[in-house]
Amino acid sequence: MPRDLIAALDIGGTKIAGALVDGGGKLVARARRATPAQEAGEIVMREVTAVLEELSGSAQWSRVAAVGIGSAGPVDAGVGTVSPVNIPGWRDFPLVAGVRETVGDLPLALVGDGVAMTAAEHWQGAARGRTGALCMVVSTGVGGGLVLDGRLHPGPTGNAGHIGHISVDLDGDPCPCGARGCVERIASGPNIARRALEGGWRPGPDGDTSAAAVAASARAGDPVARASFERAAQALAAGIAATATLVEIEVAVIGGGVAGAGDVLFTPLRRALRDYATLSFVEGLEVVPAQMGTDAGLVGAAAAALPLL
Amino acid sequence: MPRDLIAALDIGGTKIAGALVDGGGKLVARARRATPAQEAGEIVMREVTAVLEELSGSAQWSRVAAVGIGSAGPVDAGVGTVSPVNIPGWRDFPLVAGVRETVGDLPLALVGDGVAMTAAEHWQGAARGRTGALCMVVSTGVGGGLVLDGRLHPGPTGNAGHIGHISVDLDGDPCPCGARGCVERIASGPNIARRALEGGWRPGPDGDTSAAAVAASARAGDPVARASFERAAQALAAGIAATATLVEIEVAVIGGGVAGAGDVLFTPLRRALRDYATLSFVEGLEVVPAQMGTDAGLVGAAAAALPLL
Repeated sequence: MPRDLIAALDIGGTKIAGALVDGGGKLVARARRATPAQEAGEIVMREVTAVLEELSGSAQWSRVAAVGIGSAGPVDAGVGTVSPVNIPGWRDFPLVAGVRETVGDLPLALVGDGVAMTAAEHWQGAARGRTGALCMVVSTGVGGGLVLDGRLHPGPTGNAGHIGHISVDLDGDPCPCGARGCVERIASGPNIARRALEGGWRPGPDGDTSAAAVAASARAGDPVARASFERAAQALAAGIAATATLVEIEVAVIGGGVAGAGDVLFTPLRRALRDYATLSFVEGLEVVPAQMGTDAGLVGAAAAALPLL
Repeated sequence: MPRDLIAALDIGGTKIAGALVDGGGKLVARARRATPAQEAGEIVMREVTAVLEELSGSAQWSRVAAVGIGSAGPVDAGVGTVSPVNIPGWRDFPLVAGVRETVGDLPLALVGDGVAMTAAEHWQGAARGRTGALCMVVSTGVGGGLVLDGRLHPGPTGNAGHIGHISVDLDGDPCPCGARGCVERIASGPNIARRALEGGWRPGPDGDTSAAAVAASARAGDPVARASFERAAQALAAGIAATATLVEIEVAVIGGGVAGAGDVLFTPLRRALRDYATLSFVEGLEVVPAQMGTDAGLVGAAAAALPLL
């Protein structure tokens, strides 16, 4: 039996997904549980173990050569713990030790979910073949990861690429992280919706006040809705330009629900990028939509474990 | 005769310095010319050649194994050209080809001056032994470079770590680079002095309006002078925190004339860093003064060529 599969875990505040992933990025077995995000840490861990036991019961488990875990962050890959903002029962929680109780001593990689998404886009998606890339998820939060010198750059703790919490407005609104004017504080879906409502935008008869509803209004020409997306685009552009100026990247890949707004986001983003990415060595920077779908977290967790094979 | 020396060039808007550097970072021969910065490109190149010819006339030249060039940027290491902002006659100027006319086909590295300074601090100075570091020069401008995964990260074009031109104030004052609210636009020496003067600070009888004079007033308790350094410190903190959040660094090393202000800069900088570097994986970030002196550019140019040996 060849050892050619990776067991992947994608752990978020809503669901715990698992899969066995082959060398082409195909998912050959799946398991999934809801995350009991408000429960004690051990109860959350029990669901992770249930996902792993379902996978290890599959006929293909004997082909597993490594384990890749992508988790909501921050994570600490050095010591194997996680402290996801949206899972309060997990603070410095020994996730790796818990997973090892089921998987034994297989080679194992732990990365943050932004790094996992980046690994997926670099392996199979919009960043394939790129030497330098920033991959981002713009959704309820703003996360990301980096490809440098043609390789994933998770950083020593597995958190690198955390673009949502760099400040692009040092005197700006306080962010829940403790800083001010973070990219996420301006560009996340809830902040796009909040700013539109504060500016006088009103939802339709269905009462939908999501960023997607603001995007629909923006597409229909509503100036307040458009302005809120333009402000988000400006913050994203400043953050992307900062990243390119600091580490030299050739492409920014943007996924997540807010990226689903399409041209309402991408047109002002590409325009604003010309305002902030001004030095000669960053002028060629491209912005493209993500290509990986809902399985990006699982494919990326597997990709992060590829160097272990 | 062992091939154990590196020929180093440090090219700036004021001087063109050259040296032969041994494996311990010691300068065993030197040469130097003023930069005719406002002259045509070929005239500037003639002075570079004069420096190289002086070095190649030395008895030790036969020991030279590689050439390292640090130049005011931006540079383009991929094609071997430079376009220093402060040398207008050099735009996409083929510096590497010009140097090769004297040095032949020795292995050669070209990096920006911020990357060179970083290479020096990592090899011999305050970043020695560090896995992740941002090294900065805060002076007439603000430049920098990165150490990632224990190695210099020049980036594909040799410009990575350009922290002076990331925006930390997206609605802020226009920067000569074309963007707004760049770190350099707030924290460079001339901007510290300008802000103090605008706030009502006045120089002493000697009429000195340099950042060093503002620093002396700040040390003596002048509130306007202190406020100008505190604003610079805030911008530097936001930029350093952004870098740490994006790539994970453990230390920021700060040199250059403005860093000579000592506690007037470092105390508010360390305080502001606590405001902006909030995520768990960046909380331990240290800020320390640079250790390399005036030869940092030459030692760093040599260090950038070390991987070629």
